[in-house]
Amino acid sequence: MLGRLYEGQTCSAAWALEVVGERWSLLIIRDAMFADVTRFSDFQRRLGIAPNILAKRLEAFVAEGIFEMRGQDTEHREYVLTRKGADLKPVIIALSAWGDRWVAPHGAPIAYKHKDCGGRVTQELHCSKCGETPKLADVVARLTKAAERSR
Amino acid sequence: MLGRLYEGQTCSAAWALEVVGERWSLLIIRDAMFADVTRFSDFQRRLGIAPNILAKRLEAFVAEGIFEMRGQDTEHREYVLTRKGADLKPVIIALSAWGDRWVAPHGAPIAYKHKDCGGRVTQELHCSKCGETPKLADVVARLTKAAERSR
Repeated sequence: MLGRLYEGQTCSAAWALEVVGERWSLLIIRDAMFADVTRFSDFQRRLGIAPNILAKRLEAFVAEGIFEMRGQDTEHREYVLTRKGADLKPVIIALSAWGDRWVAPHGAPIAYKHKDCGGRVTQELHCSKCGETPKLADVVARLTKAAERSR
Repeated sequence: MLGRLYEGQTCSAAWALEVVGERWSLLIIRDAMFADVTRFSDFQRRLGIAPNILAKRLEAFVAEGIFEMRGQDTEHREYVLTRKGADLKPVIIALSAWGDRWVAPHGAPIAYKHKDCGGRVTQELHCSKCGETPKLADVVARLTKAAERSR
């Protein structure tokens, strides 16, 4: 899927959006991640999404290694998140945190919790050198040597 | 813009995607955020995006309060990120981290740095109760009381 839409962008965020930036993509992944949904019919019911769109997204996700298809030749076909798919959790958490702050009409509808202790889980910036939590405005982007090789 | 696409979803991540989930949206914001782009022509040149799409996105962003338009009646119209827009930085950083890990062909092309000390900035999960960095698999989502009011 890479390089088709955001061609010429030397940016991992753009490359990530090539894979998960289509409509419904991150919500399908969210339901697999936090509600343990694995069946086509369950995704469809929960999301209210058109079956052809859902089929297209799941097919692309399997091709990209975001989901793995199980029981493919049975009546109980399942779509299970891979490690690559499960690793998108910080993206969903970051979107939720922004949504909670700026567009949730009645406050945060979902809280992320630590399964072991029940504590509230948030995501924080961390500077590996000074150990501080930088202010957002103090986080800048710099090209690495790998950028040259990626052009 | 809220509620048009992902109607019925009680989820701040879905609500966030209503605002920034269209094609190009997050890359426009990225260029404003990390490359200080403010002019229509500069966004267009950097992104290689069709002018009508860019105009539509910027118009919607201004309506949503993600960008503020300045110099509106001059030749030097600028689009400047608001606090609400700048607050999307953790979303871009989370997408980049995933992309670096899973889809960057030659390694991370961009490093996020702390302006003050030059240290590498990453984003980490934090449990407010036990103080630990939970494993991804141990982060679960729970409905809050606000969820009822949001339906």
